[in-house]
Amino acid sequence: MTDPKFFPKSKKLTLEQISKLTKISLPKSTNKNRIFSDISTLDTASKDNVSFLDNKNYINQFKKSKAGACFFRKDFEKIAPKNMIVLISENPYHSFAIVANAFYPMKDITAGVHPKAHVETSVKYDDTVQIAPGAVVSSDVAIGSNCLIGANTVILSGVKIGDNTVIGPNCTIAYSIIGSNVKIHNGVRIGQDGFGFAQNDNVNLKMPQLGRVLINDSVEIGSNCCIDRGTGPDTIIGEGTKLDNLVQIGHNVIIGKNCIFVAQSGVSGSTQLGNNTIIGGQVGIAGHLKIGNNVRIAAKSGVMKNIEDGMTVGGVPSVPINDWHRQTIVLKKLINKRKNEK
Amino acid sequence: MTDPKFFPKSKKLTLEQISKLTKISLPKSTNKNRIFSDISTLDTASKDNVSFLDNKNYINQFKKSKAGACFFRKDFEKIAPKNMIVLISENPYHSFAIVANAFYPMKDITAGVHPKAHVETSVKYDDTVQIAPGAVVSSDVAIGSNCLIGANTVILSGVKIGDNTVIGPNCTIAYSIIGSNVKIHNGVRIGQDGFGFAQNDNVNLKMPQLGRVLINDSVEIGSNCCIDRGTGPDTIIGEGTKLDNLVQIGHNVIIGKNCIFVAQSGVSGSTQLGNNTIIGGQVGIAGHLKIGNNVRIAAKSGVMKNIEDGMTVGGVPSVPINDWHRQTIVLKKLINKRKNEK
Amino acid sequence: MTDPKFFPKSKKLTLEQISKLTKISLPKSTNKNRIFSDISTLDTASKDNVSFLDNKNYINQFKKSKAGACFFRKDFEKIAPKNMIVLISENPYHSFAIVANAFYPMKDITAGVHPKAHVETSVKYDDTVQIAPGAVVSSDVAIGSNCLIGANTVILSGVKIGDNTVIGPNCTIAYSIIGSNVKIHNGVRIGQDGFGFAQNDNVNLKMPQLGRVLINDSVEIGSNCCIDRGTGPDTIIGEGTKLDNLVQIGHNVIIGKNCIFVAQSGVSGSTQLGNNTIIGGQVGIAGHLKIGNNVRIAAKSGVMKNIEDGMTVGGVPSVPINDWHRQTIVLKKLINKRKNEK
Repeated sequence: MTDPKFFPKSKKLTLEQISKLTKISLPKSTNKNRIFSDISTLDTASKDNVSFLDNKNYINQFKKSKAGACFFRKDFEKIAPKNMIVLISENPYHSFAIVANAFYPMKDITAGVHPKAHVETSVKYDDTVQIAPGAVVSSDVAIGSNCLIGANTVILSGVKIGDNTVIGPNCTIAYSIIGSNVKIHNGVRIGQDGFGFAQNDNVNLKMPQLGRVLINDSVEIGSNCCIDRGTGPDTIIGEGTKLDNLVQIGHNVIIGKNCIFVAQSGVSGSTQLGNNTIIGGQVGIAGHLKIGNNVRIAAKSGVMKNIEDGMTVGGVPSVPINDWHRQTIVLKKLINKRKNEK
Repeated sequence: MTDPKFFPKSKKLTLEQISKLTKISLPKSTNKNRIFSDISTLDTASKDNVSFLDNKNYINQFKKSKAGACFFRKDFEKIAPKNMIVLISENPYHSFAIVANAFYPMKDITAGVHPKAHVETSVKYDDTVQIAPGAVVSSDVAIGSNCLIGANTVILSGVKIGDNTVIGPNCTIAYSIIGSNVKIHNGVRIGQDGFGFAQNDNVNLKMPQLGRVLINDSVEIGSNCCIDRGTGPDTIIGEGTKLDNLVQIGHNVIIGKNCIFVAQSGVSGSTQLGNNTIIGGQVGIAGHLKIGNNVRIAAKSGVMKNIEDGMTVGGVPSVPINDWHRQTIVLKKLINKRKNEK
Repeated sequence: MTDPKFFPKSKKLTLEQISKLTKISLPKSTNKNRIFSDISTLDTASKDNVSFLDNKNYINQFKKSKAGACFFRKDFEKIAPKNMIVLISENPYHSFAIVANAFYPMKDITAGVHPKAHVETSVKYDDTVQIAPGAVVSSDVAIGSNCLIGANTVILSGVKIGDNTVIGPNCTIAYSIIGSNVKIHNGVRIGQDGFGFAQNDNVNLKMPQLGRVLINDSVEIGSNCCIDRGTGPDTIIGEGTKLDNLVQIGHNVIIGKNCIFVAQSGVSGSTQLGNNTIIGGQVGIAGHLKIGNNVRIAAKSGVMKNIEDGMTVGGVPSVPINDWHRQTIVLKKLINKRKNEK
């Protein structure tokens, strides 16, 4: 299904491999050595494909699917097609994702420093690292094993990067400590001055920005995101947090673990967010706030107050999500009333 | 009027050339060979300038204008200054734009590969192509005729580019098929991973993103835009569609022909848009929606439902535009009522 | 307190130097030669640190602070700790910022053109300028003294840059006149085509963009901002104006002096803003408007009308800020009413 110009042919996996990777047990008397050659959606799958059902809307596709094996929840076992190998999973999409990664492993790094890269002599790295053409790596940078520094990316002095971290092309990284297994997409800016001024007679005097950016392990940062360094304290992105494209993180912001930031959202300076918090697209969060754990913020909200653990909010200024829905209904009624008046 | 440091002197055009380009017939007994040397606004035009009237607010300027020739609608013929050559057009601004492009043709490409570019040996291109200093073109890229690859731009493996396409400096293009006559401005990111994860126990596992980006002919993409590649299906931008700066297009999004996206708007994954649809600035569109043809979405709207052909909507969540205006009026009345209460 | 990997050790300053820089007089019988070695916050300061109190919330920290010297307002003199040297300032944060800049002066430029930069022979610059690896400087560019052109930045033909201007890595600058003491952060795009089309039968014909961008002295532009050049008139950013990251400025926009644009805000084409105006995060301003001097626009507002001098506004569409607060209260009451109904 994939374009061979861009993607290597998928690996082949035995059912036993699939079972081990996903920790899903196989039905009795299944041929463990049966070979699968690709993933597929339910409607396009063939008998050597693995598929998944995660959403009731696709039940009809499921019933007719020719997928050789399929992850789904126990409830659907009775209606599974006859010849489909049943892979009962409590989280079918996650099981499928594990297998998808095994069919399509990340491209290997082609280790070595390209002659058109510029790497200062004081840079520390080993021979597992790839530094692509046009990359500029300044003095005293330290790069872990199996890292990729993309073409025309600029790493400024003193930056430290963990292992297995991939930095795409055309990025700029400064004043930062980057963890392992981090993925930084194209055009990302990390570690530039925060936006802090002291005003006097309308003239804005820049406050020196003397902190760093700490990016913890397994963070992913989308294209053209900006993360400013701290003013003295650091700006911190917690382990496993994922940022979509064009996200703005102000200075001194501290983000917990496993948060999700959808595209074009932004957080102003010195705000702190807990773990597992989900920020919708184009959300704005004011500065100096505390946002708890497991918070959800609807797309386009404007957050101007602290939010407690587990809350879901929406609107500008943001309110509990049910109040936001009520507001929408109330406004609709007022609109209709006005329509009838005229 | 233009700064000669940046723009070449405008060409000279005869009235006959102007007439042919715009398909606007000349008044009888006009000297077809009369030469015009530039475009101008009504108020600053001289007798060898071509101007236009498209908006009633400029009628006074029109009456006094010294423009030698002017595009305008038939209704204004009676009040045109005596010596102005009358160019009756149903779309005066469009006629003017045609002539403007003829006075100021796009700069020619200076063909050749700069020695400070890096182009892999497997790249296909002909001797009409310019590859600027610092550009990196990876293996198996195919570039059509008369293309420009800007300085420090990175084109990753397998990308295909049509003819007469201009890619500005500092861009990153991956996993993409780009059409002809496409203009990609500075710092654009196309083809990076979409933002798709399978969550389990709060940990987000990346779903491999196995699709491409297809950019059709005559598309224009503004600076620092991001267009993610598809997960399996492709992300598609239809012919003639124009994106302003800092626009975000999620994975699997399909956009029709001749759409307009104003700056900082964004579309979430798997949403489909029809043809001739206009998206205002800072609009956000949720994922998995269908937006019809000829739809207009007011600036700053948040779209959370499908929109039928021809609708104009506004607000968060977006509603038909007249309802949105009613909402504004209703809120104003409530504000005033509260003012009087206190 | 700062990480020595990234920041040089702070300078040492005598009290006399601090007094002269800030124009704050010292208490009688103070030892003018006493040496201070760093700035610090109130709670972490030691006796050779300078600190400040600007906000009543920190009075308890102030009372217990071990800072050797501290800027604060006259009202707090009575409660200052015994051994603290009293630096009475009407604008303590500003005084502190002056001293902070003296303790941590901007890094010197390492003058010279790196062999991996590409600088056309017609470029004018003197031997105080640094051009970093991978930078591309095109024909007829003129660069003032003590400028830095960052790694992999691209300066296109004809651009003029004043003195002491720092352009970060991975920027693109075209069709622009840049002043002195300007700071352009990483990934900024200045001078690309404005977004102007003439539409006919749904096809959008590009209008040639024949103006420039004028960036006046002491402007600061955040990472990944985009500033389009004018269509004929110029796009102008006034002296001392500061843009945070990811800000969009459309063609022909004219911005006055000492304005502040918080991140992800945007201004559409041909709008004019006065001096000292503050634009909150994610604000959008429509095109062809006049926004006065000393205006404040709350975060996330959508401005669709002119705004007079000195106004503060909020909301979408924006209204006077007190009306916006009333609207929030009115909506809250309606929500509560609905809650009770059910």
